[in-house]
Amino acid sequence: MDMDKRVAVVGYGLSKFNRLEMKDYSIYEHATYAYADMLNNFASIKDLIKENGIDAIITSTSDPNPYSASIIAEMFNIRPKIATRVESMCSSGANAIITAYSYIVSKLCKSVLIVGFDTKDSIGMRLDWDDARGVFKHPAHWAAVYARAYMREFNLSREHLAMVAVKNRKNALSNRYAYFYNSSMLTIEQVLNSKPVVEPLRLYDCSIPCNGASVALLTDYSTAKRISNKDEYVWIKGIGSSSIGAGINSIRDLRCMYATVIAARDAYDISNVNPSMIDVAQVHDAFTICEIMAYEDLGFVSRGEGVYALEGKVSIPDVNTDGGILGRGHSAGATGVAQLALLTDAIRHNDDYRIGLMHNMAAAGTSASVIILERE
Amino acid sequence: MDMDKRVAVVGYGLSKFNRLEMKDYSIYEHATYAYADMLNNFASIKDLIKENGIDAIITSTSDPNPYSASIIAEMFNIRPKIATRVESMCSSGANAIITAYSYIVSKLCKSVLIVGFDTKDSIGMRLDWDDARGVFKHPAHWAAVYARAYMREFNLSREHLAMVAVKNRKNALSNRYAYFYNSSMLTIEQVLNSKPVVEPLRLYDCSIPCNGASVALLTDYSTAKRISNKDEYVWIKGIGSSSIGAGINSIRDLRCMYATVIAARDAYDISNVNPSMIDVAQVHDAFTICEIMAYEDLGFVSRGEGVYALEGKVSIPDVNTDGGILGRGHSAGATGVAQLALLTDAIRHNDDYRIGLMHNMAAAGTSASVIILERE
Repeated sequence: MDMDKRVAVVGYGLSKFNRLEMKDYSIYEHATYAYADMLNNFASIKDLIKENGIDAIITSTSDPNPYSASIIAEMFNIRPKIATRVESMCSSGANAIITAYSYIVSKLCKSVLIVGFDTKDSIGMRLDWDDARGVFKHPAHWAAVYARAYMREFNLSREHLAMVAVKNRKNALSNRYAYFYNSSMLTIEQVLNSKPVVEPLRLYDCSIPCNGASVALLTDYSTAKRISNKDEYVWIKGIGSSSIGAGINSIRDLRCMYATVIAARDAYDISNVNPSMIDVAQVHDAFTICEIMAYEDLGFVSRGEGVYALEGKVSIPDVNTDGGILGRGHSAGATGVAQLALLTDAIRHNDDYRIGLMHNMAAAGTSASVIILERE
Repeated sequence: MDMDKRVAVVGYGLSKFNRLEMKDYSIYEHATYAYADMLNNFASIKDLIKENGIDAIITSTSDPNPYSASIIAEMFNIRPKIATRVESMCSSGANAIITAYSYIVSKLCKSVLIVGFDTKDSIGMRLDWDDARGVFKHPAHWAAVYARAYMREFNLSREHLAMVAVKNRKNALSNRYAYFYNSSMLTIEQVLNSKPVVEPLRLYDCSIPCNGASVALLTDYSTAKRISNKDEYVWIKGIGSSSIGAGINSIRDLRCMYATVIAARDAYDISNVNPSMIDVAQVHDAFTICEIMAYEDLGFVSRGEGVYALEGKVSIPDVNTDGGILGRGHSAGATGVAQLALLTDAIRHNDDYRIGLMHNMAAAGTSASVIILERE
């Protein structure tokens, strides 16, 4: 790839996602935990910041407090050129990553710190902006609409949905940042017998709104090389994004998140990668049905074959190795940044992983972004 | 300039800034007025949008309603790749322009629609995020601190401040989008005798919070050329930005907005332009003192000589020809986009103007951006 267009993920950090433990903490305190985690884990970044500063800070959050990027800059004693917030509900994180990428490729910046955070009571957890949705104000309503449309056409049972929850909660057990870190194993029966939310979805089919923060530091090629002589970084290989809206999905096909299909197609095209080359993926499993649809929308399997992947009859990449949103917890503005962080972490620490994909979406799949990473 | 890096302002539109006339309108209705104004004034854009769509929509606002970029995309029947909100209080607009510029230069997008809007009750009108400011919650407190520091050192009278208000209100009389369009002339005496806000600032030294919206369409070189064979567009020549924070200003020098100094230096460097080459400028005159300090911080005059420019003893560019914030009204997220729109308009319609500068800042000057435009 053209050196000028190379953007590296040189560091990342998270807070432990939680609900009650840090309920009185401000958004800035959550963010500080994640930033401190990055500095602890990436010693070379401290020197970089001391010598060169950071050129931009982008906050990613649904929290309504204004001017958060400049406030965090002052709290962290960074004096960036650009400080701005990016918000797009649950896909604020992907939008912040895309914006950071463009600041670097356009040469406005050499280094960009992304700081994602939200609280469990975030404004983004309700869809009360869109009167066309009538009383269906909660994302769970829309996930249920998709699940029922999918069930009418394909061989999807509630047990299949439960398998997604069990897998991701299991993966979260060893992720020290995850809400369900070190919790007890979840069983299929527990999911099936959990409280009904909107049929066919039960409580454990739904992700849990959390307090949480995550940060990632992106740099250009020469800055990344200054930190290390080795080519050990994970690079952004391609980006696709679509804000297709609600109308087109309803008209076309409720069994498909069309924004994800477009975003994936563009990301694959730009990266010169096809779905079979993906080793590991963090997909937007806000609800169990979303992960099964993502297998198909991202091209890992054909339409209607998502359940076969779950049953092990079709091979797909390792998905949501960190627990996904179901296991990690959902902190709207932090979610996309956490996906980038923990996908990068997975690629760095597992020799079997070279190419990874993250998939972040918002508001019943009306917008979606796909970002492809590569270790070289 | 490298064709690949050229970004054109191919269209723009505004709503009439107001307080009571449209008080029950939603933010989306304000935005629609500005978008319709652009389509009415730039017929060729309609065809462009019909044929090629728009690659990104960026909203610029302090309004807390989430997901506004995707909602506006759906309202305008546009299906962009990227839809995201950018927020940085009163300089949200400049940050949105910088982000749009980087989306185009990085080749993620060929066209970006920026939609700025806010209401008179916008959350950004109070600085209640920063406990270090004590009870000084309103921007007027900080403008007064700057004014008094400046008065202690230099020959600045309340009459000088009033001259800024009179000039800008006069310029607004013929700007049909301005809050003070077609109003009566303001006199020095009226400013001096208006209600005290924070000494030495009176009511007419302060801009008025407004409902308002403004849009601008930015494209790459080839898209701009497709609309017109003539080289009639105004191009972004250089960008500078700084989020220096509150601490540095207080420590260094309260007679200077240090973020503006850095932003201007970088914008001039990148553009290969010096202050004497600027023909026309829209500066951030949220309060009268801000315009006088901007003359100095932008390098139009030496430190302490701002008042001489006002008195006509020193020559500077034409400043705030559209009425500035004092005459146009302040609608936080719309302000920076309105500056871009009306600066572009001034350059397009006045043969004496070739190079223009916009200066947008936020939160007592703790961050600032400078963008230089050129007609070729």
